[in-house]
Amino acid sequence: MLAARLYGAKDLRIEEMPEPEPGPGEVKIRVAYTGICGTDVHEYFETPRATHEPNPLTGATLPQTLGHEFAGTVVASGEGVDRAAPGDRVCVRPIRTCGVCPRCTAGLSHLCTSLAAIGVTSPGGGLAEYVVVPAGSVHRLPDRLSLEQGALVEPMAVALNAVERAGVRGGSALVTGAGAVGMGALFALRSNGVDDVFVVEPSSSRRAAAERHGAHVLDPGEVDVVEEIMRHTHGRGVDAAIECAGRPDALNTAIRSLAARAPVVIVALYSGPVAIDASVVRLAELALLGSEAYPDGVFERVLAHMAAGGFPTDGWIEHIPLADAVAGLHDVRDARRLKVLVDIPGGDGGRSGASPV
Amino acid sequence: MLAARLYGAKDLRIEEMPEPEPGPGEVKIRVAYTGICGTDVHEYFETPRATHEPNPLTGATLPQTLGHEFAGTVVASGEGVDRAAPGDRVCVRPIRTCGVCPRCTAGLSHLCTSLAAIGVTSPGGGLAEYVVVPAGSVHRLPDRLSLEQGALVEPMAVALNAVERAGVRGGSALVTGAGAVGMGALFALRSNGVDDVFVVEPSSSRRAAAERHGAHVLDPGEVDVVEEIMRHTHGRGVDAAIECAGRPDALNTAIRSLAARAPVVIVALYSGPVAIDASVVRLAELALLGSEAYPDGVFERVLAHMAAGGFPTDGWIEHIPLADAVAGLHDVRDARRLKVLVDIPGGDGGRSGASPV
Repeated sequence: MLAARLYGAKDLRIEEMPEPEPGPGEVKIRVAYTGICGTDVHEYFETPRATHEPNPLTGATLPQTLGHEFAGTVVASGEGVDRAAPGDRVCVRPIRTCGVCPRCTAGLSHLCTSLAAIGVTSPGGGLAEYVVVPAGSVHRLPDRLSLEQGALVEPMAVALNAVERAGVRGGSALVTGAGAVGMGALFALRSNGVDDVFVVEPSSSRRAAAERHGAHVLDPGEVDVVEEIMRHTHGRGVDAAIECAGRPDALNTAIRSLAARAPVVIVALYSGPVAIDASVVRLAELALLGSEAYPDGVFERVLAHMAAGGFPTDGWIEHIPLADAVAGLHDVRDARRLKVLVDIPGGDGGRSGASPV
Repeated sequence: MLAARLYGAKDLRIEEMPEPEPGPGEVKIRVAYTGICGTDVHEYFETPRATHEPNPLTGATLPQTLGHEFAGTVVASGEGVDRAAPGDRVCVRPIRTCGVCPRCTAGLSHLCTSLAAIGVTSPGGGLAEYVVVPAGSVHRLPDRLSLEQGALVEPMAVALNAVERAGVRGGSALVTGAGAVGMGALFALRSNGVDDVFVVEPSSSRRAAAERHGAHVLDPGEVDVVEEIMRHTHGRGVDAAIECAGRPDALNTAIRSLAARAPVVIVALYSGPVAIDASVVRLAELALLGSEAYPDGVFERVLAHMAAGGFPTDGWIEHIPLADAVAGLHDVRDARRLKVLVDIPGGDGGRSGASPV
């Protein structure tokens, strides 16, 4: 089969390799679509988390097949699997957890201190014709959902967890950055009853995508965002902010745009120290909340929202062939495309399902 | 009467001035004890918030009588006052709020955007023989509490609000900085069922005060605080942290010492940007919470905790005469004393009440 395998930084090879076969408790999936995200960009352009030493939890080594946002059709299952059967259309919760660390035993396994992920630090990945995964990680797609939508469940789960961390119901919110997680946050906020969503985004094409889906969009190069938000909210500030840009200035804009005691959720990736205005945090009794991946239950809620019409795919998804995966990584890094799905050859003949592109 | 009046930065004059008399809705208090705190240090050594322009909310101008942590005995009340009568022993919630801003109307008047305070930006202050305050700001002391304890209600309310923001019940906690608010946080945590309280403090005399009251004390110059806390908590981290030091390194120590999804409350004063490790905040889904002053109800809960034996005064309070107020400001700024109470001449003949020093 064909697979996109990372041999090291900036060395991704699309090559033939043997098809994996499922062992006990595993299922084999014919992959249809696989998203490229910021984590893939990090793995490819910076330092792969997979190394030549086996991952302590999963045993994975380089070369690592990339791709952790994917959906496809089950084609075989190993012994003892009753969660999925051949023919099932599924998406995959890619995280692997140790089950024994203090966080796992406290019911927060998504924060496992040994966390690994399929397509990053666990054997197999979605940028391949087939992948074998633990049966417990698959989620069957409701009939009305397409395989394309299935490939979006993982990033939308990241966004939904961020919105759920904010605990906001109704009112107004600010989303900083309209990448895929920012779009997901917009959809998740609206699914949670927040009608007034402001989206700050410097790219005009991304602003257009957010506006098409009902956001009040703001160009930080054109307007004073805090002033605009205070004007719209009669000096009160928004009830929540979701920081999806990964930029300190965006985080501080969010901090200054909040109503008293409101939360800002940090879901964007940061490395290194970030300077915040702690005085504003204190004087307005704000809450800065971290959000990482997705606890148990979030995939199920994304699927329910999707089945009810949430997380629409129009106007922000683009498809590329597997052969163009490296170009896709460049496009995502350079923000030339909002969300890229890689079409896996033969994975979704004629793009099945209810919501074709 | 004698009063300590601030004419400008580093210009505090202890001088005679006329006694104030209560108008309708006001009470006149014979002051017994007044604490010196970090806010007073800011007003004296840096830029007084009171100016020669009248404060928009209260009309206060320089010279401003200092002192916002005080207790005394009511000696007169104006027309229409039924909350307090002459002879009542009281403490005072010094904040003045506008009542009309979005935060006041949202029930968060302690975050009022026009907030002023008696002894800072409102006429009168506790560093005087008499002060006149709105009747609504006084709280009667239970019989078993001393006037000395009464003067500590305000800083203990700051500490209790911080602990209540953390929402912690039981388990373990970290307090960074054992100044007065840090000591209050230690007491408030214990009143809230948190038995294991770690206190990080470089000063040996402050560590001794915290240890005397049951804290596990850590000298950041001697031990790796994060390592020690992880060892004590079996790798889990503490359930909450209260940042009372106002130092970025203390805040980041707190961040790295927390269990997954645990809160760190910022109650210390910061000015300017503070670099935090946003990656740790995200990966452990931590919560950074601001805490400012005290919402409605906190003074009442401090008085109830005090009456039940919480917030003990032994081993961390020192008294100075009013004539030494400037020396006291230096001592507090330079951390030579932990908590200083100024004895107002004749305010508490023979130190009345149940808990003498």
